[in-house]
Amino acid sequence: MVSRFPTVVYGRRVARAAELAGQAGVTALIITPGPDLAYLIGSDAQTFERFSALVIPASGAPVLVTPRLEVASFAESAAGELGLDFAPWVDGEDPFTLALRTLRGDPVLAVSDSMSAGHLIPLMAATGTAPVLATAILRDLRMVKDDDEIEALRRAGAAIDRVHARVGEWLRPGRTEAAVAADIADALIAEGHTAAAFVIVGSGPNGADPHHEHSDRVIEQDDIVVIDIGGPVAPGYNSDCTRTYCFTEPPADVAAAYAALEEAQAVAVAAVRPGVTAESVDAAARDRLVAAGLGEKFIHRTGHGIGLSVHEEPYIVAGNELVLAPGMAFSVEPGVYFDGEWGARIEDIVIVTDDGCESVNRRSHGLTRLPQE
Amino acid sequence: MVSRFPTVVYGRRVARAAELAGQAGVTALIITPGPDLAYLIGSDAQTFERFSALVIPASGAPVLVTPRLEVASFAESAAGELGLDFAPWVDGEDPFTLALRTLRGDPVLAVSDSMSAGHLIPLMAATGTAPVLATAILRDLRMVKDDDEIEALRRAGAAIDRVHARVGEWLRPGRTEAAVAADIADALIAEGHTAAAFVIVGSGPNGADPHHEHSDRVIEQDDIVVIDIGGPVAPGYNSDCTRTYCFTEPPADVAAAYAALEEAQAVAVAAVRPGVTAESVDAAARDRLVAAGLGEKFIHRTGHGIGLSVHEEPYIVAGNELVLAPGMAFSVEPGVYFDGEWGARIEDIVIVTDDGCESVNRRSHGLTRLPQE
Repeated sequence: MVSRFPTVVYGRRVARAAELAGQAGVTALIITPGPDLAYLIGSDAQTFERFSALVIPASGAPVLVTPRLEVASFAESAAGELGLDFAPWVDGEDPFTLALRTLRGDPVLAVSDSMSAGHLIPLMAATGTAPVLATAILRDLRMVKDDDEIEALRRAGAAIDRVHARVGEWLRPGRTEAAVAADIADALIAEGHTAAAFVIVGSGPNGADPHHEHSDRVIEQDDIVVIDIGGPVAPGYNSDCTRTYCFTEPPADVAAAYAALEEAQAVAVAAVRPGVTAESVDAAARDRLVAAGLGEKFIHRTGHGIGLSVHEEPYIVAGNELVLAPGMAFSVEPGVYFDGEWGARIEDIVIVTDDGCESVNRRSHGLTRLPQE
Repeated sequence: MVSRFPTVVYGRRVARAAELAGQAGVTALIITPGPDLAYLIGSDAQTFERFSALVIPASGAPVLVTPRLEVASFAESAAGELGLDFAPWVDGEDPFTLALRTLRGDPVLAVSDSMSAGHLIPLMAATGTAPVLATAILRDLRMVKDDDEIEALRRAGAAIDRVHARVGEWLRPGRTEAAVAADIADALIAEGHTAAAFVIVGSGPNGADPHHEHSDRVIEQDDIVVIDIGGPVAPGYNSDCTRTYCFTEPPADVAAAYAALEEAQAVAVAAVRPGVTAESVDAAARDRLVAAGLGEKFIHRTGHGIGLSVHEEPYIVAGNELVLAPGMAFSVEPGVYFDGEWGARIEDIVIVTDDGCESVNRRSHGLTRLPQE
């Protein structure tokens, strides 16, 4: 298992981040533990109430400000091999002043999205200026996956495909959603994930709530069941794939709506290529469902970027005029939701290529009929 | 199992929070999912990239701004029975403007510690003013536990005591720290926790790193082993208790250092009563260890508050002049750390009473010698 990429990859990323910060007129990036830090130095350190951050100035050496107690949590990261300076602090010292120590003048800071207000507000007080989001600076870097990242996303896609291939082992009428979800969570690990980040088993009316997780509801033989599952595969890249299942021949209206959904998903995937906007992909799926009279049943955006975070840029949503480029990775996941009755969703992760896109998920898109026992 | 307290409890808390906001000159509290929201309305909603917050104005009706997709995640909370207004939003709408809709003039906002910069920075842009931390306003409320909360902390303490009582079933030479940790994690659940939030098994030299979790190190018969474990007990109040174990008669220097540690922990607990400062409790433990020549070996603060968060106010640390009051709950956990050799820590959760404190953990404080097989 790859626990992180070679150190040289992170060296390049940190240097490029500093360069982009300079171009954006930012004095320094302040990166707290989370996906940005995982991206930049391959660290899986967690965030606690004690402030810990990688400070990357536009010019000058990066420094890792961290509680002395937490220095060891960076041992597996690339920080050591990159020769990063550590600035450890102990309880009673002010880490915010420490973080700003090497920055001259009135610094313009860019902070990670995941920094908590509990850290950001004292940091602002220490600088007297309002930071911007580092996402704005790192987005071009993080959105466009390099070859190592694409390979990791393919491994994640193959792993979740193997789990969907086995859903018939666990999903059947008479079992609760929770029992099925527990088996699927075990299978996520067995098939190569380092955690079962989310397991949605939405049966019958629960399928009509896109954010339903699972419940004690007993699955019935005429249910339509939405299974939306995923998690990280080493070194931290996520899978995310939805398929919809049934046990009996669906009624004609369900079959018709599902056929329209399947078309909408295919049309949206076909719309993905360099040069088109994120919102045009959303529109492709939405227009097809509107044409089928199902516009009101598609109550969420078409997709979200994926990588070290399950949800990251680019968001495939109306209003996002971002132009797609090769290497961007995101979900294409339209759904239809009939409140109190049933729901369906089809989701693949795609990666933009030079002339279209590659799906990392390969399972059939149809409403998959499973045996009843 | 109590999944939350009666609705009336939350109604009182929301009303009191509004009152405190008014007294602090704050227009509204903006509470995102996390411990503050759990405290105020008994919600275990999680936070995602879509903005969700309970807006509590100093005067006027609170409103729950949340993605339409996530409205269902508040079903188990007290929001419904409290008759809170929901302001759902859909992808493409601006939730920050929605959150501020009912507030007049230039609002002064107070935000939860756990709000992410990804939400806080756009919220600041929408108001044009820098928020303060809601912790400053809610701290007096959250720090002083009411009877229901104290009862929950006692249940949590009893649950973790039952796990420590069983450590001898799993901890023995020849096993890896990770294997022992997995058994302890199962026992946390079996003894009434809803999750194993943290399981530290620090054997031999790993015990000298206070933030070590567990590793593949095989435990040896002459090891000193630090076991620091805890997690939430319904409705979300945490246990956190450390004991130190061995298998053979410890060398005289280890026994002497441990005896000083045991005294330091006892002296600090004895120092806890209404009217003294948080830092005086830290000083009580530290002075004793300094007197024993172990000042340099005690490399962290003496304790942290506990409740819906594992770490919250009051922090028992030098420089914290907060005056303790009945109902405050925190850890008293001095330790000694001999780099590369061994470490030890003794931790109980105490609750300040009218004339001293009550410990919710009752297991013996001695270096517990376990059988070798």
